[in-house]
Amino acid sequence: MKALLVIGDGMADRPLKELSGKTPLEVAEKSSLDRIAKDGICGILDPISPGVPPGSDTATLALLGYDALKSYRGRGALEALGSSVEILQGDVAFRCNFATVDENLTVIDRRAGRIETDEASKLAEALQNVRLGSGLTAEILFKNTVQHRAILRLRGQALSRMISDSDPGKTRALTTRFHKILKDHPVNRKRAEKGLPPANIILFRGAGTLPEVEPLPDRYGIKATAITAMPLIKGVCKITGMKLMYVKGATGTYDTDVIAKAKAAIEALKSNDLVLLHVKATDVASHDNNIQQKIEMITKINRMVNHIIKNVDLDETIIAITADHTTSTATKEHEGDPVPIAIQGPNIRTDDIEEFNERVCAKGGLCRIKGKDLMPTIMNFIGKTEKFGA
Amino acid sequence: MKALLVIGDGMADRPLKELSGKTPLEVAEKSSLDRIAKDGICGILDPISPGVPPGSDTATLALLGYDALKSYRGRGALEALGSSVEILQGDVAFRCNFATVDENLTVIDRRAGRIETDEASKLAEALQNVRLGSGLTAEILFKNTVQHRAILRLRGQALSRMISDSDPGKTRALTTRFHKILKDHPVNRKRAEKGLPPANIILFRGAGTLPEVEPLPDRYGIKATAITAMPLIKGVCKITGMKLMYVKGATGTYDTDVIAKAKAAIEALKSNDLVLLHVKATDVASHDNNIQQKIEMITKINRMVNHIIKNVDLDETIIAITADHTTSTATKEHEGDPVPIAIQGPNIRTDDIEEFNERVCAKGGLCRIKGKDLMPTIMNFIGKTEKFGA
Repeated sequence: MKALLVIGDGMADRPLKELSGKTPLEVAEKSSLDRIAKDGICGILDPISPGVPPGSDTATLALLGYDALKSYRGRGALEALGSSVEILQGDVAFRCNFATVDENLTVIDRRAGRIETDEASKLAEALQNVRLGSGLTAEILFKNTVQHRAILRLRGQALSRMISDSDPGKTRALTTRFHKILKDHPVNRKRAEKGLPPANIILFRGAGTLPEVEPLPDRYGIKATAITAMPLIKGVCKITGMKLMYVKGATGTYDTDVIAKAKAAIEALKSNDLVLLHVKATDVASHDNNIQQKIEMITKINRMVNHIIKNVDLDETIIAITADHTTSTATKEHEGDPVPIAIQGPNIRTDDIEEFNERVCAKGGLCRIKGKDLMPTIMNFIGKTEKFGA
Repeated sequence: MKALLVIGDGMADRPLKELSGKTPLEVAEKSSLDRIAKDGICGILDPISPGVPPGSDTATLALLGYDALKSYRGRGALEALGSSVEILQGDVAFRCNFATVDENLTVIDRRAGRIETDEASKLAEALQNVRLGSGLTAEILFKNTVQHRAILRLRGQALSRMISDSDPGKTRALTTRFHKILKDHPVNRKRAEKGLPPANIILFRGAGTLPEVEPLPDRYGIKATAITAMPLIKGVCKITGMKLMYVKGATGTYDTDVIAKAKAAIEALKSNDLVLLHVKATDVASHDNNIQQKIEMITKINRMVNHIIKNVDLDETIIAITADHTTSTATKEHEGDPVPIAIQGPNIRTDDIEEFNERVCAKGGLCRIKGKDLMPTIMNFIGKTEKFGA
């Protein structure tokens, strides 16, 4: 028995005026998601706890069975890990932005005009081998990723969370050094000539160290693979012992190739006990306040699930569908409302729910569970849990 | 106001192909259990936590209101306590089997041909006053119970869980000593003459010490009695301060006399605030993969409850019905699915559930609760809880 967990990022929503008080899930064409709901058991799920708006990192940790309130250590190390930066226990990593400041060091563009990756790479080169000085000894690795985004890794004795984004004083020295190198760099001189904002400062945020979690293969004796385009989710999956599968055309944006992702998931199920299939852009649509785009992304997820249902042996496969959190297209923020969950598979007690959405699933046979209870539930369905007691 | 808690061991199940996707509870004649559901409030209950398959010991601890994840210390001491072996804090006890090994010490029969109790008693006599030696000082008590089953109790300084079944090296010395005594024992010579497998070795498992729990009489100021045929459940009830009631004809097997048990419960309710009435054989049927027998055992439990309903004052008695865990008759294992719960009594908010089974109770007014929340709920109904706060 295998298990597939489909996560629509921020797919759950609140009632929207523009949809006459309905949610995107309540109006989108999603017959295959409804089929999972109809053939399976439904419920609602609090990723962390009722009313707590989760990040995608904490929510995914929870959906993989971990108590994120205990194990989460910030975003930076997870994002770095998902960006192919080696992170060891003890390292501190930040998610960074190339940005633009004026002469008074006031930020005037948080993304340096969404600087192109090639230019950012040249600037990043100039930031190697910088030393912290002033008593703080740490090995510094700075790596740009896509456009204005970058990773800073600090490695040294007892760094831990001494250096944190909530205590800007600690990183001010490094910011100043980086600024001095960047402001006169040829790349920025050329940008100025073209009238583009110079990428003359690095903003640090999301300081983090690795969470200490027991990997899924150790905990359940399983092989697990994740399919996601997002570095942050890749990092979460990596630290929990999942393998990552690269899918051409999986972009994390509206144009992502959901059929390519479906095919990858079907392939991964052949040699794994658990496959996580994550689609980002439902969340992007909510942050963009784009209701129509969110509805279309739900329909794309539906097409993806439809392709999977038609091509896997449903007598040997548990399929669970949920969201990592609610993102309100009205507030454009993650919210603490629960998300719908549907699980179908052989030997699962069914209920009379026939639709996958926030309101109807609340009446389902799973009732209301916590995010961290989902993985034990799924593992129990595929026979991978151990008895506690005699 | 009194409370009766009826536990059908492993009574909950998963949908079975042979029953057209229904569970034994969904097809069995159980009009009295349905009446409790109809007159009372229903829900589903995770004995330990969603997806976690409980043992009967951890589940019963939970149903009595304890956090088994914190207080459970293994099976051995509970089973010993339930087999009338004195167990003190600090003692380590094992559940043992008389078994048969060949010349290479390879186990060829885990139960020594289910040796008769009389013969096992004679062998057990020969195992008294054995010393551990090699630095380990412990007082040893070995007691056979029924057929091949036995208890080993070690008492000494700082034994704790140093000696455990997961670390066979520690008990190897004792195993060797016992083997030397048993292999040439007259009882085994006679068995060999008759062509029976000699009981020439003792297998140790389920190392355990006593859980530290606040007894129910102290916690709630109640008198409580348990009616069960199983040593393990007797041990759990004893350690929680319940009295045990012996019932002639209560066997823990299919032929158990449920009317005798019902009469005992009615009698016990006269002088107790809480009576636990446990029936084992529903679980046995699942482990035996015997669907028909499970259905018949549910109907026997129904007859037992019917006898009780007709003979107690329902205006003065709360009756709760549940299972300690799900046992799948398909997998023959304890599973982590929740169990149905129904509670009837005066002043209890009712719901519109009219049937006692896994799927329908999920729609009940109790929603989904945890095992450890059941006892406070029951105690509150009979007015035995204290206000927390002012």
